[in-house]
Amino acid sequence: MASPKKDFHVAIIGGGIAGVTLAIALHHRNISVTIYEQAHAFSEVGAGVSFSPNAVQAMNYCHDGIYSAFEKVCTRNLWSSKQKVWFDYLDGYNKGPNEAHGDRRQDIEFTITNSLGQNGVHRAHFLDELIKLVPKEICRFHRRLEDVQERIRDGKLILKFADGSEEEADVVIGCDGIKSQVRQIILGADHPAAKPSYTHKYAYRGLVPMEKAVAAIGEELASNSCMHMGPGGHMLTFPVNGGKTLNIVAFHTNPDDWADYPRLTRESTREEALRDFEGYGPNVINLLKLTESDLSVWAIFDLNDHPVPTYHKGRVAISGDAAHATSPHHGAGAGFCIEDTAVLASLLQDERVQSHRDLEAVLAAFDASRRERSQWLVRSSRFIGDCYEWRAEGVGRDFGKIEEEIVRRNAVIADLDIPRMVEEARQELGRRLGGGERASL
Amino acid sequence: MASPKKDFHVAIIGGGIAGVTLAIALHHRNISVTIYEQAHAFSEVGAGVSFSPNAVQAMNYCHDGIYSAFEKVCTRNLWSSKQKVWFDYLDGYNKGPNEAHGDRRQDIEFTITNSLGQNGVHRAHFLDELIKLVPKEICRFHRRLEDVQERIRDGKLILKFADGSEEEADVVIGCDGIKSQVRQIILGADHPAAKPSYTHKYAYRGLVPMEKAVAAIGEELASNSCMHMGPGGHMLTFPVNGGKTLNIVAFHTNPDDWADYPRLTRESTREEALRDFEGYGPNVINLLKLTESDLSVWAIFDLNDHPVPTYHKGRVAISGDAAHATSPHHGAGAGFCIEDTAVLASLLQDERVQSHRDLEAVLAAFDASRRERSQWLVRSSRFIGDCYEWRAEGVGRDFGKIEEEIVRRNAVIADLDIPRMVEEARQELGRRLGGGERASL
Repeated sequence: MASPKKDFHVAIIGGGIAGVTLAIALHHRNISVTIYEQAHAFSEVGAGVSFSPNAVQAMNYCHDGIYSAFEKVCTRNLWSSKQKVWFDYLDGYNKGPNEAHGDRRQDIEFTITNSLGQNGVHRAHFLDELIKLVPKEICRFHRRLEDVQERIRDGKLILKFADGSEEEADVVIGCDGIKSQVRQIILGADHPAAKPSYTHKYAYRGLVPMEKAVAAIGEELASNSCMHMGPGGHMLTFPVNGGKTLNIVAFHTNPDDWADYPRLTRESTREEALRDFEGYGPNVINLLKLTESDLSVWAIFDLNDHPVPTYHKGRVAISGDAAHATSPHHGAGAGFCIEDTAVLASLLQDERVQSHRDLEAVLAAFDASRRERSQWLVRSSRFIGDCYEWRAEGVGRDFGKIEEEIVRRNAVIADLDIPRMVEEARQELGRRLGGGERASL
Repeated sequence: MASPKKDFHVAIIGGGIAGVTLAIALHHRNISVTIYEQAHAFSEVGAGVSFSPNAVQAMNYCHDGIYSAFEKVCTRNLWSSKQKVWFDYLDGYNKGPNEAHGDRRQDIEFTITNSLGQNGVHRAHFLDELIKLVPKEICRFHRRLEDVQERIRDGKLILKFADGSEEEADVVIGCDGIKSQVRQIILGADHPAAKPSYTHKYAYRGLVPMEKAVAAIGEELASNSCMHMGPGGHMLTFPVNGGKTLNIVAFHTNPDDWADYPRLTRESTREEALRDFEGYGPNVINLLKLTESDLSVWAIFDLNDHPVPTYHKGRVAISGDAAHATSPHHGAGAGFCIEDTAVLASLLQDERVQSHRDLEAVLAAFDASRRERSQWLVRSSRFIGDCYEWRAEGVGRDFGKIEEEIVRRNAVIADLDIPRMVEEARQELGRRLGGGERASL
C-alpha cells in the first residue's frame, strides 16, 4: 500500500465510523490527513450495527486492521447451526397455531441467510477498536465546523470552527453524519436536502439479560437473531455482549411529526412501548416487559424525501451518513460508509492525482461511483421496513413476498465486487482527469 | 442606460481612476457596487495625465459625466494653431543650427498630432471631479484588502481587510494599481508577475511659472507641449493650471537597480537632475534650472518583464494598472484604464448575466477582450520611451524613423472603435455563457 507522499492534505470532518475508517485508510496509504471531531472524543450514537459481506470486503480493502477490529468485537448467533442466519422472521402479532397446546410462542416463518450470518457490533466498542489505528497527532477534538472558504490566492480550503480557529486543507470530506454541516455547506442551508426528514418510524431500544430472555421466548429465539413482524410495528432481537445480553430494537410507525428535531432521541418508558405494541403476540410483549422501565426512543430520520443532488462541490465532499443517511432496516448503513471509504481512499491514492483540479475530479468520480447505489439503499430500506410491518405496497402480509423482497434486495447489498467498484471509479476518474488542461497544485 | 437591478454585488478595490470610473459606470447602470480604498480618501499619485481619442470615446461610453469632468479640468496647448498638436519633438541635446546667430534654442524636428491634441489633466484634480459622481454610501475608506476567500456554502466572495473587517461580494475587481494586492491574490505572491519590474528609467518632476518658462525657451515652446529628446534622457513639457504653469517631466535611463521598492518615489534635488542631464542643450538645462531645489524622482516600473498571464481567477479580476501597469511614454495608461471600465461595465450590465457562473464568464470575456491590447501597450511604451532617447533598436537617432514609429503606434492606441470592442467582448461572453449547464446564483 505504501505510496510516495502526496503534496495535498485531507481534512475529515467527524469521527464516526465513516470518518475514522477514512482516516485509517488514508493515513496507512501515506496520505496527509487530519480528522476534526466536535466532541471531546470520537463517539458513535446508536446501539448495535451489523455488517453484510460487502462491508467486510470493504473493511479489508480499506485496511485489514478495520476487519480485525470488527472481528474482535462482534457477537454472532449463539447456535452453531445458525452461523449463516441473518434473521429468523416471525409473525410477532397473530396467535400461533400451537397456542391451543399451551405454547404461545410463534413459529419461524422464514429465514434469511448470508455468508456472514448475523454479526452484531456495538458501535461504540467497534469505534474504540478502530481509533487504536489512528495516531493521536492527526486528531483534533472540540472542533465544530461552521464554514469552509476557498482562499483565492492558493486555492487552499480554509476550515472555520466555532471556537474561532481556522485550519487549511486541500480537500474536505464531511463524515459528519445525518445532520451534516458539510452537507449544508455544499447545498446551502435552505436546500431541501440540507436537513434529513422523518420516516415516521421510531424505535425503543432495550437490553435484557439472556437468561431472562430465554425464559420468556425460549432458547432458540433468544440465542439467535430474530425479526418479529407486525402491523405498523416490528421488533428485532439479537445477542450482544458475547451472548450475555439480548439487544432489543422495537420499531413503531406513527403519523405524528417528530417534535424534538434536531434531537433524534427522547426519553420514554416501558409503559409507552407496551401501549404502542398493544395486541402483539407473547414474544414481543414478554420481551418488552423485561426491559428497563425508562427506555430511550430513537427517531428514524433519513435522506429519502430529498436525495442529495451531489456528493461534492469543488473539493468539498460528503461521505457516509452525511451523504446518504438511511433508516436501519437493511442493516447496511454502516457498511455503505465503509464502501465510501474504500472508493475515496483508492481515488485519493491514485498516482495521477496531484493538483487541486485532480482532487476535484476525485470527488466527482466518487459522486458518480457512489450516489446511485447509496440512494437506492435509502429507498429500499424504507420499503423493507414497511415490509416488516405489512405496509409495503404490493406485499402486505404475504410472507412469501416479504421473503422474496428481502432476498432480492439483500443480494444487491451483499453481492458487490469491491475491487470492481473501485476500478470503475478509477476509470471514471481517468475520464475526468483526461479532459482539459491540467493545473498544478 | 437604466436596467433592472441585478442580484449580484460588485466590490471594487482601489479608488484611483480605474476604480472610480468603474464605480461610476456601474452605479449609473443600476448595478450594486461598493468601492474600497485603503487611504482616508480617494487619491491618485503622479502628476499630469493626458488622454487620447480612444480614452475620450471610452469616457463617454462609461458615463458622460466622466467626459465632463475631464473637460472641466484639462489644459490644452495655449496656441490655437496647436490645438491638434500632441507633442512637438525637438533635439534636446545637440546644438541647433541657429546657435551661431546667438539663438541657442533648437528647432522643432517634427510634430505629432491627433484629433484631440494635448490635454493635460492633473490626476488629483480629475479625480476630485470624478468622485462627485460617486455616492458616499458606496464608498468605504481605510480598508486595505489582505485576502479574498470564496465561501463554499453560497459562493460569496469574502473580502478580508487589514483591520479585521470582512465584506461580501459576488465579484471583485482589483483596481489597486501597479502594486496590486488583488493581482497577488490571483497569481500567488510568488508569481513573477505578482510584482512590477523596474524599467531602468526614472523621472524628475517639476513645475515652472509660465512667464519664467517663456523667458527661458521662448513663447512657442513654453505655451505648447514639447518632447525634448536626447541620448539616454528626454524631457516632456506641457502647460497646466490653465496655462499659468509649465509642467516638466525629465526622464533619465540608469542601469542601477531601484533600491527603494516598494517605494516608487524618492526625494532628490535640482542639482542631481542637472548632473543627469549634463551636456544637454539649453532648452533642457535652462528649464531644469528653473525648477525647485528639491525635486522628487519617480521610478518607472511596469509589468513588461513578466506580463500577467490572466486578468482573472474565478470571479476575481484586475483592471487598469493592476493588470497592465505601463511606463508613461505613450501617455495612454490612464485611457486604457477607462477602456477596461467600458468593457467591464458593458459585460456586467448584459441582461444574460445573472449567476455566479455568468460572472465568471464576464471576467473571462474581459480578459479575452483586453489582455492582448493592453499588454501590447506596455511593450510599445517601453519601445517608444527608448525612441525618445535614441536607444531603440533599428531606430536610433533617425528622426524620420522615430516619427514613423510614433505615428504607427499612436494610431493603434487612438483608432479604437469602443462600441465595436464592447460588442466583440459581448460576443465572447455569449460564447462562454453558451457552454454547459447554467447555474443559478
